[in-house]
Amino acid sequence: MSILVLGTVALDTVETPFGKRKRLLGGSAVHFSMSARLFTQVNLAAIVGNDFPPRHIRFLEDKGVILTSLIRSGGETFKWEGKYEGDLNTALTLDTCLGVLTVFKPVISDRESRIKNIFLANVDPDIQRSLLKRLRSPRLVGLDSMNYWIKNKRKELLRLLKEVNIYVANDQEARSLSGENNLIRAARYLKSLGPDMVLIKKGEHGVLFYSPKFIFALPAYPVDQVIDPTGAGDTFAGAFMGYLARRGKSNAADLKRAIAYGTVAASFNVEGFGLEKTSRMNKAELKGRLDKFKSCFIF
Amino acid sequence: MSILVLGTVALDTVETPFGKRKRLLGGSAVHFSMSARLFTQVNLAAIVGNDFPPRHIRFLEDKGVILTSLIRSGGETFKWEGKYEGDLNTALTLDTCLGVLTVFKPVISDRESRIKNIFLANVDPDIQRSLLKRLRSPRLVGLDSMNYWIKNKRKELLRLLKEVNIYVANDQEARSLSGENNLIRAARYLKSLGPDMVLIKKGEHGVLFYSPKFIFALPAYPVDQVIDPTGAGDTFAGAFMGYLARRGKSNAADLKRAIAYGTVAASFNVEGFGLEKTSRMNKAELKGRLDKFKSCFIF
Repeated sequence: MSILVLGTVALDTVETPFGKRKRLLGGSAVHFSMSARLFTQVNLAAIVGNDFPPRHIRFLEDKGVILTSLIRSGGETFKWEGKYEGDLNTALTLDTCLGVLTVFKPVISDRESRIKNIFLANVDPDIQRSLLKRLRSPRLVGLDSMNYWIKNKRKELLRLLKEVNIYVANDQEARSLSGENNLIRAARYLKSLGPDMVLIKKGEHGVLFYSPKFIFALPAYPVDQVIDPTGAGDTFAGAFMGYLARRGKSNAADLKRAIAYGTVAASFNVEGFGLEKTSRMNKAELKGRLDKFKSCFIF
Repeated sequence: MSILVLGTVALDTVETPFGKRKRLLGGSAVHFSMSARLFTQVNLAAIVGNDFPPRHIRFLEDKGVILTSLIRSGGETFKWEGKYEGDLNTALTLDTCLGVLTVFKPVISDRESRIKNIFLANVDPDIQRSLLKRLRSPRLVGLDSMNYWIKNKRKELLRLLKEVNIYVANDQEARSLSGENNLIRAARYLKSLGPDMVLIKKGEHGVLFYSPKFIFALPAYPVDQVIDPTGAGDTFAGAFMGYLARRGKSNAADLKRAIAYGTVAASFNVEGFGLEKTSRMNKAELKGRLDKFKSCFIF
């Protein structure tokens, strides 16, 4: 089954201890697509400005991403500039240019409105909601957000949480939205806000999954050189949601394996700037790392 | 096979969001003993002052801890006062009274000098070294330290690292001593300083084990109410080293299982103040949690 992702397409300028890269193709929907494409057909709903390089369009098409609902609008493409220091766990945002994001009204085709597996990557909760309304028969809806919306559009986000199946958040966001420091209590609280399941991403410390039926935790895949973590969370979500879309079901075994795939996909992402690694990774490499990963914690 | 632990016996005053407790029995050697005792006979080498309550001696003896080498000296028992806030990951030290620790010269019996499994818990590296010299035929020596010694007795610590088998550090210490932010690189560097293996404790984020033969990582056992994390690392080390001492060998399977036991033992520790939980836990509870833990991350 195919998947539909709503999110950003961005031009990222990133500085880490390993160097600086300007105007890399990035954004939540793009990073998501790079891993989801290995499991299923990806339909991308986003907006870019008239400064968006045509080579990026060709690149995405080459990767099999369906761009029917990528809107090209007058104005600037969304740009983000950030810096990572020390342990590379937290990005310091230096500059943000929202550009065309401020006028983004997602429009999807009739075919896409029938897609059952959806990921609402990080954009304004109002935009996420407007897409959600267009769906005919969603089966599994994942939602991501960020601290900015938790602070500034809390009401809208809370409303949205009642209508999705999986809420994906990083540890800071989970703590901030729940007011709980303990991540299991945070997850339990977030679950009570509406979604069936909560997935908390902890960067280099792995992931914690919570559903009323079971708790699941994985450490991160051990990577000895983190070059640029930008997009790791979306890469995780892409493999996670992509695997579930391919399976067409989401019982405990599917969910656990999906989380494991998300974990190893994210490990590729951090090993290079932007899409350097994820644009080249293939299913066999992902599977290879998955098998190796298992031996890291089976006792 | 029995085990010998060198470390502190302390009176801890601790404040966490769940309350404040004064002069609890604590210290690295005591927390270590509470979990190690479930696997093997524990011999404790430490010092206390003449203000040390006799009931604590009886308590330790009741738990089967051999106190032949617990020195009772004139002066004050080592006291630590600390506070935890927020996510309870980092202790804020409010006061430290070294007391008799400043005159501590460990003396062990002839029988103890023949013990093969040793843990040098956190005390002055010079004291750790003086004990190490008295051992006749150590087989497996674990070493813990702390930031204070990394800063103030670096040379002595580096010398000691060449003579031990396992270096146990928390993530801050590993980063500080290695100068590496990435924990795998940090572990690899620490290994190059002498020990055969490196074990990095990451608190609520679990543990990372490094040896040239394999890397092993486990998330923390999910605990939904962390009351007081004081001593969690030593409780981990106690179960880890205790299990290995009981096995009498340390191949990959033993090491992995030892790390898993350390993880679940630490989860009991954080669920109560001081020794509240670890003094009562038994082998069956530990085993029960170990089995439950497995299902948390097998995919």
